[in-house]
Amino acid sequence: MQRYFSNNKDSNELFLNNDDIYHIKTVMRLKTSDLVEIVYNNKLYICEIEDNYRFMIKEEIDIKKTDKPYVVLVIPLLKEAKMDLILQKATELGVSEIIPIITARSVIKVTGKEEKKLARWNKIVKEASEQSKRLDIPKITEIKKIEELEIDGKKFLCSVNEKKTTIKKVLSNISIYDKIVFTIGPEGGFENREEEILHDLGFKRISLGDNVLRVETVPLFILSVINYNLMR
Amino acid sequence: MQRYFSNNKDSNELFLNNDDIYHIKTVMRLKTSDLVEIVYNNKLYICEIEDNYRFMIKEEIDIKKTDKPYVVLVIPLLKEAKMDLILQKATELGVSEIIPIITARSVIKVTGKEEKKLARWNKIVKEASEQSKRLDIPKITEIKKIEELEIDGKKFLCSVNEKKTTIKKVLSNISIYDKIVFTIGPEGGFENREEEILHDLGFKRISLGDNVLRVETVPLFILSVINYNLMR
Repeated sequence: MQRYFSNNKDSNELFLNNDDIYHIKTVMRLKTSDLVEIVYNNKLYICEIEDNYRFMIKEEIDIKKTDKPYVVLVIPLLKEAKMDLILQKATELGVSEIIPIITARSVIKVTGKEEKKLARWNKIVKEASEQSKRLDIPKITEIKKIEELEIDGKKFLCSVNEKKTTIKKVLSNISIYDKIVFTIGPEGGFENREEEILHDLGFKRISLGDNVLRVETVPLFILSVINYNLMR
Repeated sequence: MQRYFSNNKDSNELFLNNDDIYHIKTVMRLKTSDLVEIVYNNKLYICEIEDNYRFMIKEEIDIKKTDKPYVVLVIPLLKEAKMDLILQKATELGVSEIIPIITARSVIKVTGKEEKKLARWNKIVKEASEQSKRLDIPKITEIKKIEELEIDGKKFLCSVNEKKTTIKKVLSNISIYDKIVFTIGPEGGFENREEEILHDLGFKRISLGDNVLRVETVPLFILSVINYNLMR
């Protein structure tokens, strides 16, 4: 059954935005009395479509939310195709929050069109959340500078200069109640000055192993191994 | 330093194909007396460019090949963009061999243009091997039918129907001397009949966990966790 996210609920009815209704009509070709899954406030409802595309709650489904740590990815601004790939795949793999940052070696510069970008990114993670049957949509913050990364949690900086402390070592000390933050540098890495700032903000350098990975592969690697680490 | 792969060596000289020489001239703009890395027969050489783009061996670099299991991915034929993504990322993440297969639910059908496809795929994994500084290029076999998957090794079939045996459980029994084979189904999964054939060929069903992943994300997940499993 197709899944959608809603921001608006009455006692026995859920409301979808126009894009979703268009998708239901034109792409899915659903009609009156067909059923859809709608998530509201991290809860899953089965709704029946009534005339004029109203979504009446038939049943609330009891889903045990898997307990996982809250995972934040801090990623450099990248070209559109790479950014889209990260947003879609990181959503599938369970990311909680994404913070895009400006770095000295970023190819992409801030141009004043950031609101449009954010809207686009939020659309991608919403659709990926529907496809991968999540109960929440990852949060994307506004674009930040490195100096603005004053956040709490267990904070790590992926660095090819680090050889001893591997991600495996640090994940062995993570519990499902933790907030963990992974910062990924641009192609060519952070400048020393930037690594220093992050270090002063409490980010600890870690190694991701011997493979030479492209920037857009790194978030997928990190999220995959976090999931694996929690697996039985 | 840029890395290339060679198939042809004299006592003190390595030979590259025309595509690579074009890349050196036009993309990298390297000139006489510049240095390049060239891999021949899993060994790395530093070569100096001489007149008319001849590559003279200056030094053989002693690299300890990391001991890893031989990892085979069996993947369904997918649309070009997804196939390219898998080939590039799987190469970065250390895959040894890729076997494309025809499945009942594949969107892509065999059309007789398979040789052209294979040439294209081999180009992608060669370039990704150069970029990710590998000492070998993953092997891509010809497209096979499920019935033809008579291969040796420890063989697994990723299945959403399996809940108990996780990839984590089976990887705990893998050594660096093993050959391991992971088979991934198309969007919508294998038909029962196909799973039966694979089961009869010795493939054991495993679960990849709770996330709902798109087909092209699965190989990246598997290779990431194999690398993580080997990490200290």
